Amino acid sequence: MIRVGLLGTGRIGSLHAESIASHRESTLTAVSDINDETANKLAAQYGAIVESADEIISDTNIDAILIATSTDTHSDFIEKAAAAGKAILCEKPVDLNLIRAKECLDKVSAAKNPIMVGFNRRFDPNFAQLKKSLDNGEIGNRELLTITSFDPAPPPISYVKTSGGLYRDMMIHDFDLSNFIMGELPISISAVGHSLVDPAIGVAGDVDTAVVTMVYADGKIAVIKNSRRAAYGYDQRIEILGSEGLLQAENILENSVVKSNNDGVISAKPKYFFLERYIGAFKAEWDAFLKSIHNHKPVPVTLKDGVAALAMAEAATQSQNTGKSIQLKELL
Amino acid sequence: MIRVGLLGTGRIGSLHAESIASHRESTLTAVSDINDETANKLAAQYGAIVESADEIISDTNIDAILIATSTDTHSDFIEKAAAAGKAILCEKPVDLNLIRAKECLDKVSAAKNPIMVGFNRRFDPNFAQLKKSLDNGEIGNRELLTITSFDPAPPPISYVKTSGGLYRDMMIHDFDLSNFIMGELPISISAVGHSLVDPAIGVAGDVDTAVVTMVYADGKIAVIKNSRRAAYGYDQRIEILGSEGLLQAENILENSVVKSNNDGVISAKPKYFFLERYIGAFKAEWDAFLKSIHNHKPVPVTLKDGVAALAMAEAATQSQNTGKSIQLKELL
Amino acid sequence: MIRVGLLGTGRIGSLHAESIASHRESTLTAVSDINDETANKLAAQYGAIVESADEIISDTNIDAILIATSTDTHSDFIEKAAAAGKAILCEKPVDLNLIRAKECLDKVSAAKNPIMVGFNRRFDPNFAQLKKSLDNGEIGNRELLTITSFDPAPPPISYVKTSGGLYRDMMIHDFDLSNFIMGELPISISAVGHSLVDPAIGVAGDVDTAVVTMVYADGKIAVIKNSRRAAYGYDQRIEILGSEGLLQAENILENSVVKSNNDGVISAKPKYFFLERYIGAFKAEWDAFLKSIHNHKPVPVTLKDGVAALAMAEAATQSQNTGKSIQLKELL
Amino acid sequence: MIRVGLLGTGRIGSLHAESIASHRESTLTAVSDINDETANKLAAQYGAIVESADEIISDTNIDAILIATSTDTHSDFIEKAAAAGKAILCEKPVDLNLIRAKECLDKVSAAKNPIMVGFNRRFDPNFAQLKKSLDNGEIGNRELLTITSFDPAPPPISYVKTSGGLYRDMMIHDFDLSNFIMGELPISISAVGHSLVDPAIGVAGDVDTAVVTMVYADGKIAVIKNSRRAAYGYDQRIEILGSEGLLQAENILENSVVKSNNDGVISAKPKYFFLERYIGAFKAEWDAFLKSIHNHKPVPVTLKDGVAALAMAEAATQSQNTGKSIQLKELL
Repeated sequence: MIRVGLLGTGRIGSLHAESIASHRESTLTAVSDINDETANKLAAQYGAIVESADEIISDTNIDAILIATSTDTHSDFIEKAAAAGKAILCEKPVDLNLIRAKECLDKVSAAKNPIMVGFNRRFDPNFAQLKKSLDNGEIGNRELLTITSFDPAPPPISYVKTSGGLYRDMMIHDFDLSNFIMGELPISISAVGHSLVDPAIGVAGDVDTAVVTMVYADGKIAVIKNSRRAAYGYDQRIEILGSEGLLQAENILENSVVKSNNDGVISAKPKYFFLERYIGAFKAEWDAFLKSIHNHKPVPVTLKDGVAALAMAEAATQSQNTGKSIQLKELL
Repeated sequence: MIRVGLLGTGRIGSLHAESIASHRESTLTAVSDINDETANKLAAQYGAIVESADEIISDTNIDAILIATSTDTHSDFIEKAAAAGKAILCEKPVDLNLIRAKECLDKVSAAKNPIMVGFNRRFDPNFAQLKKSLDNGEIGNRELLTITSFDPAPPPISYVKTSGGLYRDMMIHDFDLSNFIMGELPISISAVGHSLVDPAIGVAGDVDTAVVTMVYADGKIAVIKNSRRAAYGYDQRIEILGSEGLLQAENILENSVVKSNNDGVISAKPKYFFLERYIGAFKAEWDAFLKSIHNHKPVPVTLKDGVAALAMAEAATQSQNTGKSIQLKELL
Repeated sequence: MIRVGLLGTGRIGSLHAESIASHRESTLTAVSDINDETANKLAAQYGAIVESADEIISDTNIDAILIATSTDTHSDFIEKAAAAGKAILCEKPVDLNLIRAKECLDKVSAAKNPIMVGFNRRFDPNFAQLKKSLDNGEIGNRELLTITSFDPAPPPISYVKTSGGLYRDMMIHDFDLSNFIMGELPISISAVGHSLVDPAIGVAGDVDTAVVTMVYADGKIAVIKNSRRAAYGYDQRIEILGSEGLLQAENILENSVVKSNNDGVISAKPKYFFLERYIGAFKAEWDAFLKSIHNHKPVPVTLKDGVAALAMAEAATQSQNTGKSIQLKELL
Repeated sequence: MIRVGLLGTGRIGSLHAESIASHRESTLTAVSDINDETANKLAAQYGAIVESADEIISDTNIDAILIATSTDTHSDFIEKAAAAGKAILCEKPVDLNLIRAKECLDKVSAAKNPIMVGFNRRFDPNFAQLKKSLDNGEIGNRELLTITSFDPAPPPISYVKTSGGLYRDMMIHDFDLSNFIMGELPISISAVGHSLVDPAIGVAGDVDTAVVTMVYADGKIAVIKNSRRAAYGYDQRIEILGSEGLLQAENILENSVVKSNNDGVISAKPKYFFLERYIGAFKAEWDAFLKSIHNHKPVPVTLKDGVAALAMAEAATQSQNTGKSIQLKELL
């Protein structure tokens, strides 16, 4: 039984608490948050104790740390927890600052304990099946990847302002997903982005609609499309053309009911947002983390993966600002 | 070039006129109708002459007769045209009266000229592909067939009253289609039907919603479902379970546009009615008829097929009225 | 916290044990089985004790009994548990013998404790959504219902021999589902069935492919299609035509990946069998049972519902054997 | 009746001949080709005469000229036919050389006769419906357009060498389609392309896989994806995100048959290539051209549209070669 300390008891922290508590091989031992109220509530719900983050990290009754605090604290907690010999699962992104993230990667490079970054989409069973089919050679060589990722509605402007921008906050999921699907990093990255959904997002210096094009060493191409708004719900699709066919991971609808009437043939909307769409992926992610600990095997998403995705977000941001294509190696 | 005389210039006759005139190997030579106006109009449109039905049948400049007159005249015209040595394509049904239809079949049994019945659905490319896949053994042995056939809206009550009833007028298409798909006739037929769409149909002694179950010699089963009304358009589907899989012929939609919005994921409606849905089938039917003439090969839908479908309609009518299963051999 | 005693620790019992144990408001207190080994194993897994069925029923530490034993014991256990004042969830069918089931219904008719029958499909979220749309009047009046229910593969012949036959064992789910969807019982039932999948099933006196047609008081019609084999997995669909449209609950596929290659456009198969397909329904069923207890509300599937479904299975069996339509009121 | 002279009797010319001949309001009067054999054959088939291109252009019995010759002759023929006062339908592209195309546009700017460019996809009923829904405001404001256009197989290398490259030869259809859908021209264009399908295409100086990203004045974005090979057939899709939803025009499959077996749920492939996929669009294009003549209305695709699409192809080519985003106004 892995005893887990959870840092951060907000929305994502609470989601992870449920995964931790409902898994047969883990228990939620302690929680910490700068907000006492949410910490106490979650502790009570799962029979955990409340400690400070530092107490949890140094608590010898705790085997693993789940970091779900605000992004600016991730690097520090990773370094401390690694030094304390804990297994670590840290929410994405590693940091908003690429230099800091790379510094963190350097510092913990010698750590023997598992350090995993929480890119949950790799664990979505549909995306995982697509990846498996690709690796099986079912459509031959990879040629042209498209990831569509639209949120149902934009976050509050207050969130946008501290998010690090669409590329670091939202598209970072898709950068990691592209690395997972393609099995390699791109060499160049071009981005165009604009504020079409809400002018306030533009005023805050961010974009809400963006397209990134990436080229790989042998000429393969990937396109990522992001929007902060889709009136029909959370649009999460992958499509990849190969030399022998096409693979698509389609949206998961709310239910399988189809109504035909004078308006047409009407299916349900896609599941609304990540809590509904990726609940299974979060659980599978946690299970994979526990398996890495138990089997002494490498974690499926490394800190290096987390830094790579962040560098891609940085490259996209620079490309958008300069109108030029950015070579990824200049950032890694 | 096959020179064609068309008997009947109503809706179906006009449809056939277009197929005849646009085919490279046939020309519309003469038309006939009890309504001078529609006859003259169609003749003018295609450069044909107007004659009486008897004149057309005896016209030595005419090779083939297309019978699209009212059903009660079909048997007479078939007999006359067969005696005159013409190739014949007669619209369904052969007759409303099974005894008369069988008499007609007997009388023309020695005819050497092609006599074909117009069950156009056999020529729908989707249904034909389903049949081909079955014959190729793609799903193993046939086990359970379901035909869904819903009209978009009921016909006028005046039509219902002289139609011979839903089984002879509408489901007769599906009886023939089941014979085509299964490759054999059923041994027993059970029907339930009610007037749910329009009470006036019930008052007229007919039903508008019906289910027929048929059993074959070796235990295979077929179900036909009919309704005179589908608020979403013309619903025309086939589904058959075999020992190694399932084949379905799905509806053809008006277009391929899909709209996703707050109401769901919305596709277009099925094509509205038989003119839109089966326009290609009518043309393919005519082409098959011409090919039979040119290649001196048996027609793909024989008069015997037409009588068999009528007998099945008769059996269904009797089953509905008696609440008992009817043995088809008692009627054939 | 509802303390539950589980009678029967076979496949279905184990499935329920998981629902009981993982629900926040119930705990698995005791288990019983004629097979000590499975009972001990399940007890160990969930920290329950092993007792005899009678001990469990009389155990004052137990609030609710889940009956998942062999069908011939259901009526006895229901009567005993009801007499002991326990809340009861009994797996389907209530009994193979309609007279015995009706006797049981009579005996417990005065019981104040909740007695629920385990027709899990009512709790499938897709079917529940279809029912909700119907009740909302989204397609107007119900007219023609079709339930398709094909198992992926037939059970062992040993199972077939004691199952009570396809209608009582398999189609009983669909009889209950039709009652749920239509909101009323049919007045007449006709069945045809044959042994097409495996001749040994026929030798054992059962059928493996069957179609049942049911008519309701006002002329509405329902069709149920069953097969013991579908080479592509578990086929579980509902389709209902109404005066203003059509509702369909489609299959749930194993994943959302679509592969396009030289063979066509290929989606995943339906989820393999009921464990995969209805896992959520079993959990929702348990939750509904607990809610009935807590809220002192009627259970959503009553013992009377269970008897009605059994009577319909009996009617179908009689119809198949006699070739006649059976009036349901003769059996209820 | 519009009397038509056809210049060019190759594959596309023959296709147009069929549209011309089968339309009630046009007749194929004369044909011309540098290859006598194909010209004679087509003339015989439709009862047309064979003349030289110059004879046709000056033939007072001819009302309209359809230019389907090799691209390098288009500008000359347009200028001559315009000078002769003929109505003109010219196949795409106007020219491979943008300067020459603009010169042609200048020269004929005063012409009163209709001059239309053959971008047939605007006339595909599915794309036209998508455009109509957009113009109706069904998904609010346009935000992010994606056009997917994959050929089933690459053309011969000999063709590639004289084609002007993927952007001018193939993607030019999608550039025009994007202008049609968006209702305006982009301001900047970025392209990446590589030779992944066939190294010989790269050796010939061309690409076979390309992605173009375009930005519009108010920040809207469009992505065009092209590949010369799709193992599953001709992939022709449009998808556009708007402020209130998403519109997609999906592929048209060869038939509506779906097979479910142990391999999955298998639909037919998309229609193989443009002859199968756009046969209706070619006919609708011709009909629209005739309507413009009859109704003295502007043609739906102007020569200016043709020059704009060519300028976009030129910009994409420059962007690919330089790695920079190109401003379209520099080329127009």
